[in-house]
Parts: sequence; structure tokens; C-alpha cells
Amino acid sequence: MPYNLLQGKKGIIFGALNDQSIAWKIAEKCYEEGAQIVLTNAPIAMRMGEINKLAERCGNAPVIAADVTNNEDLKNLLQKSMEHFGGPVDFILHSVGMSMNMRKNNSYTDLNYDFTHKTLDISALSLHRILQLAFHMDAISEWGSVIALTYIAAQRVFPDYNEMADAKALLESITRSFGYQYALKKKVRINTVSQSPTRTTAGSGVKGFEGFIRYAEKMSPLGNASAEDCANYCVTLFSDLTKMVTMQNLFHDGGFSFTGVSREVIEQMEK
Amino acid sequence: MPYNLLQGKKGIIFGALNDQSIAWKIAEKCYEEGAQIVLTNAPIAMRMGEINKLAERCGNAPVIAADVTNNEDLKNLLQKSMEHFGGPVDFILHSVGMSMNMRKNNSYTDLNYDFTHKTLDISALSLHRILQLAFHMDAISEWGSVIALTYIAAQRVFPDYNEMADAKALLESITRSFGYQYALKKKVRINTVSQSPTRTTAGSGVKGFEGFIRYAEKMSPLGNASAEDCANYCVTLFSDLTKMVTMQNLFHDGGFSFTGVSREVIEQMEK
Amino acid sequence: MPYNLLQGKKGIIFGALNDQSIAWKIAEKCYEEGAQIVLTNAPIAMRMGEINKLAERCGNAPVIAADVTNNEDLKNLLQKSMEHFGGPVDFILHSVGMSMNMRKNNSYTDLNYDFTHKTLDISALSLHRILQLAFHMDAISEWGSVIALTYIAAQRVFPDYNEMADAKALLESITRSFGYQYALKKKVRINTVSQSPTRTTAGSGVKGFEGFIRYAEKMSPLGNASAEDCANYCVTLFSDLTKMVTMQNLFHDGGFSFTGVSREVIEQMEK
Amino acid sequence: MPYNLLQGKKGIIFGALNDQSIAWKIAEKCYEEGAQIVLTNAPIAMRMGEINKLAERCGNAPVIAADVTNNEDLKNLLQKSMEHFGGPVDFILHSVGMSMNMRKNNSYTDLNYDFTHKTLDISALSLHRILQLAFHMDAISEWGSVIALTYIAAQRVFPDYNEMADAKALLESITRSFGYQYALKKKVRINTVSQSPTRTTAGSGVKGFEGFIRYAEKMSPLGNASAEDCANYCVTLFSDLTKMVTMQNLFHDGGFSFTGVSREVIEQMEK
Repeated sequence: MPYNLLQGKKGIIFGALNDQSIAWKIAEKCYEEGAQIVLTNAPIAMRMGEINKLAERCGNAPVIAADVTNNEDLKNLLQKSMEHFGGPVDFILHSVGMSMNMRKNNSYTDLNYDFTHKTLDISALSLHRILQLAFHMDAISEWGSVIALTYIAAQRVFPDYNEMADAKALLESITRSFGYQYALKKKVRINTVSQSPTRTTAGSGVKGFEGFIRYAEKMSPLGNASAEDCANYCVTLFSDLTKMVTMQNLFHDGGFSFTGVSREVIEQMEK
Repeated sequence: MPYNLLQGKKGIIFGALNDQSIAWKIAEKCYEEGAQIVLTNAPIAMRMGEINKLAERCGNAPVIAADVTNNEDLKNLLQKSMEHFGGPVDFILHSVGMSMNMRKNNSYTDLNYDFTHKTLDISALSLHRILQLAFHMDAISEWGSVIALTYIAAQRVFPDYNEMADAKALLESITRSFGYQYALKKKVRINTVSQSPTRTTAGSGVKGFEGFIRYAEKMSPLGNASAEDCANYCVTLFSDLTKMVTMQNLFHDGGFSFTGVSREVIEQMEK
Repeated sequence: MPYNLLQGKKGIIFGALNDQSIAWKIAEKCYEEGAQIVLTNAPIAMRMGEINKLAERCGNAPVIAADVTNNEDLKNLLQKSMEHFGGPVDFILHSVGMSMNMRKNNSYTDLNYDFTHKTLDISALSLHRILQLAFHMDAISEWGSVIALTYIAAQRVFPDYNEMADAKALLESITRSFGYQYALKKKVRINTVSQSPTRTTAGSGVKGFEGFIRYAEKMSPLGNASAEDCANYCVTLFSDLTKMVTMQNLFHDGGFSFTGVSREVIEQMEK
Repeated sequence: MPYNLLQGKKGIIFGALNDQSIAWKIAEKCYEEGAQIVLTNAPIAMRMGEINKLAERCGNAPVIAADVTNNEDLKNLLQKSMEHFGGPVDFILHSVGMSMNMRKNNSYTDLNYDFTHKTLDISALSLHRILQLAFHMDAISEWGSVIALTYIAAQRVFPDYNEMADAKALLESITRSFGYQYALKKKVRINTVSQSPTRTTAGSGVKGFEGFIRYAEKMSPLGNASAEDCANYCVTLFSDLTKMVTMQNLFHDGGFSFTGVSREVIEQMEK
């Protein structure tokens, strides 16, 4: 079953909290496909989660805590990773997002802007920080691949997704902007994967999530993509077979993004 | 109420069948805003419809039959219009579409390709024919404006819209391609207006139309745009205030196009 | 020439610095079309600019300073405007943007993140602040219209546009997100206008601006849209003729956005 | 180096003319990755080309002539392929396009519509024909994958691409429309890959191709993607790792599609 698509490759995985996390599945799959990895998450998330179990399953991968809004933490992470691997990394997964406004149940028309800045910092600018540091530390190999996970709320309104929609739009723009720069410097490609709604600890926290996930299932002709499916897809994007794909937002959603309405939804509307 | 936005302008309106037609409302509104117009439709549609009533309401506008798949008919239409107006026209509305496969209840996976060619010819290539003839006959004034009505099925799948989705995608591409050429030659702008589903004679013929129009209403935060709303919008696009807008597909749909899901639809899904 | 399209309407114009500003032209045109307006800008911009001249030309419009990152200032602005007009406003123009990183000549791969937060606050979150306050103060009339000016760098990379590209992507997302909410509450529509590069004081500050504006001119089959053209277009979007257009990003650029390459550019490449 | 990503898979490759063809490279790569294939092309193309050499290099793959506008030919192709493989196919590559107007040097404003219908028939409806036949003959396995090659002229105007732009827009719409239907029936996914301009026999025939390919190279931060790169990418899309990607248009172009302008192009403009 494993194809050894990532044989010899080295990567950093941000955001694996527990075995519901998409990042968790991606880490496992990358390891299975031959990659060595370093795991990282926020110090607090590491205490709550079970990242050490994942580290074991991935060949005793190092676990390095880093607050993604803190340049020193990120610098340390990149440095330690390079020391561990004996050189730059080949791929990075960014699966990071948090909205304090949503945690506090502030609706989109009642945002606290200090929280919003924090949301943007954690969920979007963090990608820029990682890339800017890597750019100057030369921490990504030539033809390396960076993926950030995103959601279609960046393109269309899903009301319960609240300010995370705006954070994801910013994240996708950073992907394009930095994708241009890093391609010129070092042939590094940077893309976002826009994944179906997934029953993760983060996803389930969104209000109205269950009604929504059922809607998405009915609107996607192939059904919702699972975390495992996403892991498979990311492996192809980290591999050498997709070197010329960059600055793209890639929908991985069973066809949801280009389905205007499905017969199942129409029937439900007629009830 | 009238602003005289189209004072002194001359235009041709394709596709007014009866007072449910969007083209009918547009013709009335253009006249109200000071334009002189020529009306045209297919010979058979003219027999079925009530276009002469519309002509009366629009200052006894000439009515000139034309099969949009017939170059001679279109040439005659443009020539007669120029004679009537004493010069080139300032605007053209293309509101033309027909699918024989849909009339015969052929599903999208059972298309008759002779019918499909006819669908594409009537619904999309007709715009190219009109423009190509006008281009060579110099039948559109400098800074003229051409609008073709389209539907969001050109971007996303609405299963009951069948092969008309493909025809509209072709129409929108022709709009861009010819928009480039005509802008260079004569500053003429060409755009599509992508309108909410509307209870016209043509619209109502689509299978599942009622369930769908309710869905669209619930998915559009401003509700569905009416034919009258569309007429108002088209007047602005024919006016001198929008001279630099070209090669665009302009959604006129109460926000449907950028709404991923609404609370009302989620609630319906939870039933 | 004036059509009285905005007769009886009341609006607030953000961002008129001097007679090169797009906002300046829009204010003049709105006044010419029958609107009453209130002008606002940052205190520092008001000292540098000539906004009082504009106020005179617009029927002695009140000028109210407001820092767009300061809720109290914005609250005061909305309150004073409602007192002046004797009720809510019908339209708002947001033409605000500033990047401290660009002023300091920090390249996109050398951002100072404190500056970036300031850029996002001024250039994008400001729109949310204005709308959130107006939403709760009921400061916009039913069927009101809000426009924010943006640039195509939100979709594609223009390297010299630097972090403003990301700020504009965030701005456009806020437009959609809040557009949904305000449509439901009060039928208010919110759109962005994505304008050709324009020789304003802000635009000219961008590195490589002259080379770029020439490129845009050659790539736009109708040429670049001017500030005056933009003012004309905005008038239609503030008028009652475009009530059902919301949550859209509307390109006003002479066709640039859908031109992949022009013959002129190809010829230049062959030199 | 081979990963055996397509071990046990069976596919049909349309459109390999000679070793410059993208389809040729894809066939070779699929074979290298473990697939068995059937090759097909138009009878006339087979006489001109060297498809038998390719067949030899791919394990003596059967070569079956088929005119893509002829249902009987396509039916025969599918039937023979199923007999050869002992069951349905797992993947299909559609790399087919032809414009008689371009061959005759008719400009976009001088189209012969009989030729245009032929262009649409060969370049776009052919995909529908293949899929409709396969749908009814059950000729594609569950979770099968279909790719059609396309070009960004479907989204933006590249004047020398002429009516092929419209044909590609139609092709992409068919991909979405049929993608929805085939996903529901049999979990088959259908996508387009929008490839960089490539020096194939077909590509080189386009007027101004050399100037254009240089422009694309300068506008793509990773440079233009080669036919070999495209073959690698298609292998991932035919593999089991991308099962949930459907109805998408996937740019494979070194970043061209999201680059608004590059510094190199700006510099060239300043000459």
C-alpha cells in the first residue's frame, strides 16, 4: 500500500492535537510514505492533546512546542528541526486556527477587535512568520512544498464560520503572495488545501456544525472528504510529482465547491 | 422617477416574449429612461408572444423578426435598425436561450448531440454572430454597451439546468473573447448579467423550478432579484456611467453567488 | 448632464485627501448627482490635504475627523452625521489604506508584524468597525449601499503591492461576510470596486508604479479607468437602480481583469 | 523512482500524436507507474504520427483509432478496451483539440460557424460523448478518474488562442456538469488540468506562440511546466490518493494563473 512517495523527505507538521485532527492523519500518512517528521503545536495544545502518542507512531518524531505568534519560538523550531534533520526541510504543513471571538460566542456583528487581531495573528500571519523566518534561515530545500489548510468560507459566506472566514481569506492571500517570492528564490511551492468540513475538535466547536456537515454531505456528489482522504491528497502535494503547482487554492471536498445545488437539497427544501 | 439615463440612446432588445420576460421589462425601462429601441425575436416566438403590445408601450418601436442562427436575418435586423435610427446603435440586449434536449426531457446523461449543437447555436453562438456582423457593419457606436443575460449554472452545477449550463459557459467565454476585440476596435463594452432565477415562461419550463426558486430565495440574503430589478441594473450598464466595465460576468442575485449557506437553509436541513 | 441619480440621498465619504484622490472625485460626483455628503479623513491626512476645498465644492459639507482604528472616533462620526442629516445615511464610501511596511521600504519578505497589524487595522478592519457600529446604531437606511475600493492584487500577485494585497483580500472577505449580515438585517448592500491603478498620492507611492501603470494600460483593452470614471460607476452603485447587487467584487478596470495577455504586451516581449 | 502509483490500473489515453505531445508523456508515465493502457487518436492523426512507437514503449498497448465526433467509433473503442482489459477502465485522459478556423487563419472576428461547430464538437463535446457512452456502458470503474487538458484562455483572453478559448470554456463546463452526474452514479471523478503553454505540434501552430511562451515563462515564478511535469501531475490525479477531488479546474502552470505581473515583465515594459 505505501508507495514511498516521500522516501527521504523531511517535514514539519503544525497542529496535530489528537487523533481527530487532520494534521494527525497527515503526519501518520507522511511517515507511512517514507518521510521523517518533526511535530509542533502550541504549548497549551500540547498539554491538552496526545501529541506524544503520535510522535511514537511516527518513528519517535521530535516534538517541539512553538507559539506561532512568537518569532523566537518559530526560529527555535526551525533551527532544532534543521539540526535534527541535518539540513533544511522538504515540506511543511500549516494546520492552525483559533478564534477567541468564537470561543466567547461573539457573533460576527459583535466582534472584539483585540480578539480579531489575535485570530488573524494565529490563523493567518503565522504562515507568513514561518515562511519569512524559513526564507532568511534557508530552512526549506529547493523544490520544497508548503501546504496550509483552509476552508471555502474564504470565498463564500457560511455564517457560523464567523471571523474565521476572513482569517482564511487572509491566509490564502499570504499563500499567493509568499508563493511568488519563495518560488523565485528557491523554487519552493506554497498552496492551500480547502477541505470539506471535518469532525475535528476544532470543527466541532463551530455552532451549528452538525446541521452544516449534513448539508455539505448532501451537496457534495462524492460526499464529504475525510481527514484520511485529506492526508492522502497532501502526500501527493508534498511529493516530487506536483512540483509545478503553486499559489493555488485546491478544493478537496468531493465536489462541494462547484455544486450549486443538489437534487437531495432541493428535495429537502420541498418538505 | 425616470432619470433620463439613456436619453438619446438607441438600442436593440432580443428576446421579449411576453410581460413575464426579463427582456420585456428591460425594454420598458430603457424606453422610460429615454432610449429609442428596436425589438426582435424569433419568428415563431413572435407568433406565440405579445411583442406588439410591448412595441406600442415603447413608442411604437419597430419589431423585426430574426432567427439568431441565421446570418442573413441578423444582417437584415442590423441594417434595418441602422436605417431606422439613422446610424449605429448604442446598446444591445441578448436574452436568448433554448434547449431542445430539455424540451424533449432528455437528461444531461442522455443528450442528443444534434440538439446540443442547436442549443449552443441559439443560446451562445448567436451572440458571436450578432457581434461579428455588427463589427464588420460598424453597427455599434463608439463606447456602446452589450449585455447578455446568463445564469450561475455556468460556474456551478444546478442539475436541472442541464446542458444550458454549458451553453451559458460558452456564452460567457464569447463575451470575454469578443469583449477584448470590440474594445480595441471601437471602445464597445460587452458583459453578462447573471440574474437570479426568475419566473419567466422560459424559466418555469425548467424541471424542479419551484423547489429551486425557493432555495435561491432562502440562500440570497436580499432575496431573489426580480425582472424589474434586472431592468434597473441593465439601464445603468447601458448608460454612460459604466463605460470602463467590460468582459465581466456581473452577478445580480441578491447575494446568492457569494453565500455558501444561509441559516434558513441549515434549519431546513435539520428538519 | 447630471441625472439626479442620488437626489435626496445622504452619504459619508472616507478618504478624500486632495484632488488626485478617487474619493475626492466620488464626493464631487455624488454631490453633482443630488446627494448631501459628510466628509471624513484621519486627522493627520486632513492637515496634509485640502479637504476643506472639497467641502466647499460640495455645498459646505461637514468635515469630521476620524481615526478609522478608533471606535470612539467612528461612533462620533456616525452620530454627528445622523444629527446633521436628521437620520441615517444612505451610502458610505470606504477609500482607506495605509502600509507602514511599505513606507519603511520593508519588502514582503521582511515584514515587521506590528506594522502589518496596523496595515490590516487601517486598511481592512476599519470597514468592519464602521459597519459594526452602524449596525448597532442603525446608522444606515434600509436599502443603503456601501462601497469599499480595492485592487486586483487581492486575487493575483503584483509584487510591488506588497502586504496591501493581503489587506485587500481581508477587506474583500469582510465585505462578503458583513454583506450577508447587513442584508438580512436591513437590506443594506456592501460591495467592493476593484479599480485600475490610478495616479493618486497613495498610488504613486508604490515602488515601480509608473512601469506598472503602463503595463496595466497596455493590458486593458479600454485602457485604465480614471478616478472620474470610477466616480461615475460608484454613483450607479449608490443609486436605487442597483439594489440587488451585494457581496460582489466589481472590477472597474477597462477589461484588465479578464485579459490574459494583449498583443501590445506580446510585442513588447519580443523586443 | 517509479512508485507503482498506478499498479493494476487500466486507462485510455486520447491524443498522443508524437513525442512532443503531452498525452505521449502521460502515457509513458502511466505505464512506468504500473498502469496498462489503450491508446487512441483520430485515424488521420494516427497516420501522421508515430503512435505505434509509443504503443511499443508501453508494453505493446493496443492502438484503436476513433474519431471523437463519431459515437460508433467511441463505442467501439470503449468496447474493445473493456474486452482487452477484461473489465471497465480506471482512468481516461482527454487531450483533444482542433480549430479549423485557426488552421484557415480566420481571426476571432471572422469565424466561419460551420468550422466553429466542428471545433466545439472535436474539442469539447467529444468529452461529453465519451462520458455519456461510458456512463451507459458502465465502462469506468467505481472511483475512476477522468482528466481533460485545458488552457487558461478559458478564463482570460489570450487573443491568439482564438475560438479555442471558447471551446475550452465549454470543455470545463462539461467537466463540472458531468462530474456531478458521474460522481453520484459511480464515484467517478472528472477534472481538467490547465497546463502551461507547451511546445507541442498543436501548440506551436498557434500564431505568436513563441512570443507568448516567453511571456508565460517570465510570468510564472517557477517557470512554465513541461509536458513531463504534467505527466507526473496527472499520475497523482489518476491514483487512489486523490479520490475526493472532482469537478475542479487545476492549474498546473508554475504559478502563472495567480501572478498579476512579475518584476521581469515590468522591467521589459520599461524598455
